[in-house]
Amino acid sequence: MHSINQLLGIFENYLEAHAFAKEPNALYAPMAYVMGMGGKRLRPLLSMMGAQLFGDQAQAALPVAMAVEVFHNFSLVHDDIMDQAPLRRGQATVHHKYGLNTGILSGDAMLIYAYEFIRQVSNQSAIPRVLREFNRVAIEVCEGQQYDMDFELRQDVKIEDYLLMIELKTAALIEGSLVMGAVVANAPEADIEKLAAFGRNIGVAFQLQDDILDTFGDPQKFGKKVGGDIAQNKKTFLILKALELARGETRDQLAHYMSTNPEDDAQKIRAVTDILRQLNIEEWAEQMKEQAQQKGMAFLDAINASEERKAPLRELTLRLVQRES
Amino acid sequence: MHSINQLLGIFENYLEAHAFAKEPNALYAPMAYVMGMGGKRLRPLLSMMGAQLFGDQAQAALPVAMAVEVFHNFSLVHDDIMDQAPLRRGQATVHHKYGLNTGILSGDAMLIYAYEFIRQVSNQSAIPRVLREFNRVAIEVCEGQQYDMDFELRQDVKIEDYLLMIELKTAALIEGSLVMGAVVANAPEADIEKLAAFGRNIGVAFQLQDDILDTFGDPQKFGKKVGGDIAQNKKTFLILKALELARGETRDQLAHYMSTNPEDDAQKIRAVTDILRQLNIEEWAEQMKEQAQQKGMAFLDAINASEERKAPLRELTLRLVQRES
Repeated sequence: MHSINQLLGIFENYLEAHAFAKEPNALYAPMAYVMGMGGKRLRPLLSMMGAQLFGDQAQAALPVAMAVEVFHNFSLVHDDIMDQAPLRRGQATVHHKYGLNTGILSGDAMLIYAYEFIRQVSNQSAIPRVLREFNRVAIEVCEGQQYDMDFELRQDVKIEDYLLMIELKTAALIEGSLVMGAVVANAPEADIEKLAAFGRNIGVAFQLQDDILDTFGDPQKFGKKVGGDIAQNKKTFLILKALELARGETRDQLAHYMSTNPEDDAQKIRAVTDILRQLNIEEWAEQMKEQAQQKGMAFLDAINASEERKAPLRELTLRLVQRES
Repeated sequence: MHSINQLLGIFENYLEAHAFAKEPNALYAPMAYVMGMGGKRLRPLLSMMGAQLFGDQAQAALPVAMAVEVFHNFSLVHDDIMDQAPLRRGQATVHHKYGLNTGILSGDAMLIYAYEFIRQVSNQSAIPRVLREFNRVAIEVCEGQQYDMDFELRQDVKIEDYLLMIELKTAALIEGSLVMGAVVANAPEADIEKLAAFGRNIGVAFQLQDDILDTFGDPQKFGKKVGGDIAQNKKTFLILKALELARGETRDQLAHYMSTNPEDDAQKIRAVTDILRQLNIEEWAEQMKEQAQQKGMAFLDAINASEERKAPLRELTLRLVQRES
């Protein structure tokens, strides 16, 4: 049994031992750059904890943990290109630092390396199942990203559409990270299903938290531009709930703002944030988030494993949904 | 035993049965578009023929055949973005037709689907070996693409650097397509090695042929812009051999042209092509190509399989290296 910090140490050691230090340098240096940017390593921790629920098998989950972290970073590199984002975790994004072509190609190579880590799982009989899960997740993440971009241009997005989108774009990988860890540890099928449901729900809670911070977070801690979602006309829960609650002129104003792309977006961000504040949207979002979190926790409760083995997962979940950056 | 045309029919049926007709449409339509553009389906044919060498197992190689074709098309979509190419096979490239973001994301999804086809190989015990081979090839293709881009900016590229680059960028996938087919068919290890060497050599011959056509091909048949390599300062065998043979002012002129990017490149393409003609470079390249082809054929000869089963591979190789588009 390992604590969160112990697991983090084990993972960082593995990461260091598998650094992308190869030729051609122009391909691998950006991969090392983005993997070295840090981040909370949530997904690898989830894989290791998913394994550890069913025995002292956190180490066996390391290749899977690496695969999900490399995949997550691949998706950030390509998403940042698509979103034209200059900053990530307070540092220059890969395409800003190295150029568009490098961003595309290094991202591709990271996606391939994710599969190379999957291949290195030592529990060989688990590989077909792990590969199936990884493919499902990876495809869902792409579908989610496409819906996310589609929604920027659509004015008829419903809250249920948004929830489907974040299940694909964010929750699927949280779920998959846990599941693949459990599969490597030969967990019983019934428990894997409960773990999946836990993951999907806390994944939704996690994304809602991210949406809240994107609008109401502390610019010093957030690492990305606060108000970025508003600037990009992202139809997050915050906006969709506000469109549902707002009336008359306020509603028209909000709908108008969320379909324009002004050169200087500071005024737009301020005005939309003000409307969200008037409508108490942060509270609505907090409520929605807690609902998802509680629903997830009920599935964790039902898993046939000791409370001691569940404890790190409970602690990490709290960090996930209350994290400050 | 199937002829080339029979194999092509079997593959096209499989392709049609696995069409990318899903939601979100903005993600899948470009994938269907690029897969439907045609092309000669060389790589899937090689997989099926690699399997067929060792028994009537062409059908068993279909998932692998699909994986290599989807992967190849993924690489074209992303390479065309990096090369800013407007045309492919005489039609608009994906990013030109659908935009940059769609080009990136649909390409990503295709790469993932390639792995999903690998997973569907029914000879389960072959999957770890197939996955290892596929990862090796996929990473080499990315490395080759990076070297290719690096070489555009470098003035010190040697012919051996170029040969390494095309082994990675082009020959690795030709080799891998054959090998994965043979692995699915449970071929003996010694024969797989010979098949790999055959593939690597004809892959080099294939790329040399492509380079020849890029400069000296018929614009009506080529499908891409003739002279494109010259315009982009690609250090192909043609250019490197010319730099080796040219003397005095001609050499200076050639070196100068191949390090500039004039707005209007027609004059540059004409001038460089003239120099290549003066130096008889097409003949040198033909010779180099035939050498690689013959070296490859010797490995095919040595494989322990009937002449009847080798015949389609011999025929396809001739088409590969003498193809007109």
